[in-house]
Amino acid sequence: MQIILLSGGSGARLWPLSNSVRSKQFLRLFDSPDGEKESMLQRVVRQIKGCLSDADITVATSSTQKDAIIAQLGNQIEIISEPSRRDTFPAIALATSYLRSVRNISDNEVVVVMPCDPFTDSGYFETIRKMCEEVASGCSNLVLMGIKPDSPSSKFGYMIPVENGNKIDRFVEKPSPQFAEKLIAQGALWNGGVFAFRLGYLTSITEKYFPGGDFHDIYKGYDQLPKKSFDYEVVEKESKISFVPFTGKWEDLGTWDSLSGELNEESIGNAVVSDSKHTTVINELDIPVVCKGVNNLIVALSPDGVLVAEKSLSGQIKNDVEGLIKNPMYEEKSWGSYSTLDNLTTEKQSIITTKRCHINNNCIVSEECDSYNRRILTFLCGKGNIEIGNIISPIAEGMVVEIPENSSYTIHSNNSIELIETEIKRQAE
Amino acid sequence: MQIILLSGGSGARLWPLSNSVRSKQFLRLFDSPDGEKESMLQRVVRQIKGCLSDADITVATSSTQKDAIIAQLGNQIEIISEPSRRDTFPAIALATSYLRSVRNISDNEVVVVMPCDPFTDSGYFETIRKMCEEVASGCSNLVLMGIKPDSPSSKFGYMIPVENGNKIDRFVEKPSPQFAEKLIAQGALWNGGVFAFRLGYLTSITEKYFPGGDFHDIYKGYDQLPKKSFDYEVVEKESKISFVPFTGKWEDLGTWDSLSGELNEESIGNAVVSDSKHTTVINELDIPVVCKGVNNLIVALSPDGVLVAEKSLSGQIKNDVEGLIKNPMYEEKSWGSYSTLDNLTTEKQSIITTKRCHINNNCIVSEECDSYNRRILTFLCGKGNIEIGNIISPIAEGMVVEIPENSSYTIHSNNSIELIETEIKRQAE
Repeated sequence: MQIILLSGGSGARLWPLSNSVRSKQFLRLFDSPDGEKESMLQRVVRQIKGCLSDADITVATSSTQKDAIIAQLGNQIEIISEPSRRDTFPAIALATSYLRSVRNISDNEVVVVMPCDPFTDSGYFETIRKMCEEVASGCSNLVLMGIKPDSPSSKFGYMIPVENGNKIDRFVEKPSPQFAEKLIAQGALWNGGVFAFRLGYLTSITEKYFPGGDFHDIYKGYDQLPKKSFDYEVVEKESKISFVPFTGKWEDLGTWDSLSGELNEESIGNAVVSDSKHTTVINELDIPVVCKGVNNLIVALSPDGVLVAEKSLSGQIKNDVEGLIKNPMYEEKSWGSYSTLDNLTTEKQSIITTKRCHINNNCIVSEECDSYNRRILTFLCGKGNIEIGNIISPIAEGMVVEIPENSSYTIHSNNSIELIETEIKRQAE
Repeated sequence: MQIILLSGGSGARLWPLSNSVRSKQFLRLFDSPDGEKESMLQRVVRQIKGCLSDADITVATSSTQKDAIIAQLGNQIEIISEPSRRDTFPAIALATSYLRSVRNISDNEVVVVMPCDPFTDSGYFETIRKMCEEVASGCSNLVLMGIKPDSPSSKFGYMIPVENGNKIDRFVEKPSPQFAEKLIAQGALWNGGVFAFRLGYLTSITEKYFPGGDFHDIYKGYDQLPKKSFDYEVVEKESKISFVPFTGKWEDLGTWDSLSGELNEESIGNAVVSDSKHTTVINELDIPVVCKGVNNLIVALSPDGVLVAEKSLSGQIKNDVEGLIKNPMYEEKSWGSYSTLDNLTTEKQSIITTKRCHINNNCIVSEECDSYNRRILTFLCGKGNIEIGNIISPIAEGMVVEIPENSSYTIHSNNSIELIETEIKRQAE
């Protein structure tokens, strides 16, 4: 079984923890069995490995998320990143072409496409196995997961089954709550975005755009694929389509209110909470937060900003934060992570940015300064070396290295390294 | 007229804006007539200059506050800083000995001692003038201001007048609210800590400890002065004592609740507040804060930490913040200010601190590194020069200067300078 995890999205709804490169699936907020914190992405991968141990996992994503995925999943899982951002159909077409033409997977093998951020239980993965069996039985070209709604939400797409069967009559996208209630009374289920099909099925659809094309052709000509969702381009056009129902725990966790309901602690990070009820505090800053006498709040702090919101209104912060979203101040990279400490624009319009960087053990960081750009690195601790031109120097506590314009450097870590980087970007004249 | 402003205190109650070096009187939160923000200290000095233009001002303080006072008042106002922290009697004795033996003020001149942080109106200063006239009349050795209570607060000291007159019968320190109510019914007033007397009066009291001693003797022998308050050592022992009542606006502003009531805006700094009532936001961080759907809160952010508190409970945060108060992360210096961006202790117990410093125009900063301590300065912008040993170098954007152990340096600014300083303190072996 091949599983393609779709990792996309950029969350204003979980600001300030999520930003343009750090979507909600990357937030390490949940307790994992080893006592550490894990993200939704890490949780789903752990669950797949536990429940569907015969499955190969491939992550389909955009290039901006690749680093965060490597940081969270390591190098063991294949990542296919889109050359440009389009929609779910092109992303899935690219990933399936990779399976076929690079990994040489047989056209007969069942592929399951699923989001990387459902907060769910093992029943979900058992349902996926049933979907694969349904595909293998040959009765359907495409099998979807139908999730039993627990509310007439207008956030989701609904599928209306034909009477007495597992065939789908029609789809309704984001109905009003009133209409959703009617649909649910007719037995409608949420379309959870989980699709199972044989690899050859999608190959034949992709062939329309790239006759005889392999992964590299599709990658190169990616912009020729229609900017359409998989639902629109594939699901709604398919007549041999059925579903397998799932009635277990399933949460979207797309807002602070829903997300905080799944956290085991009242607070995460450096926080003191007193005389407060139903308040959730998540502090990713080094400085402490004190909450006193506050009820039903979400208080979230990151290098991007601070949110203090009543939980029931926390799903509506999009307009409030819109003007605030700039360059992300915290980012996970394949080699570690960084926080922006300071940003300054000088009179001459130079932009000077100071970052605190953490480089993981045994990593390689390669960076380049162009003709408008130089850097000052102050190594705080850790072991390794830095290569500039052909000169390799060992890293020492308090060592300062100036990287001039038009030069590149590579850091090799033998031990996790902490450093302060000041970058000076001159204005082009 | 000589005015001695007492500047002391270190506020956990206004955490995170106040800290061990930044007491509440230094918070620049109030609108000044020039459209800028001013602190309580700056406000009081401006009011004295307006209402009591013939008064000379001297500030009596501890050495830890001297820099902040220069930063706020400039070099025009005399500052007498205690060699060690004792209490109000020694501080006042030191300041008055300075007036007499260094400034050669006559023993006959009236001295007014007052706190530097009353939030009050011009009537307060007119009352001070009446107190001086009362002293000059010779009827009393010591004249106090009696503030008409607007509540039976147990935070203050009360003075109970003799019937029909301006003499004081007795004092009661911090009574219970019930007792305070009784006292107020008897005509009791708050002791606002404003004292007027002739300079020679206090000289004769100080003489007991330092017969014939001048300012330098008292400074050198400061620890021999009793660690007692002026109220205890002087006021309560004096029989020729009277008061002048003051019935105007007077606020202590010692808690977030009372302080926020005097602010003209709902928010100060980088903040978005929506769907919220009676919430006050003060953000001294560069990153934005978003408050949504929150009522009756104080939200205060500084490099020291973040507070989210229900206003009515905001006076009770002392225990919550006790364990959090470390080295101040923001400090006003005589030459400008700094914020701590990052703090790291290495495996070998070196402490590495990275600060963002702002040096005002035309200032001199002289610093020294000892044998366990070195610094890396990265200049971001501004003009001036830096002197290390005998070598003077002009400052340039992006210039890096390493200050080795056992050396000193001086920065002269011709223009305000921004820099990043990384200090590496090795553990003594």
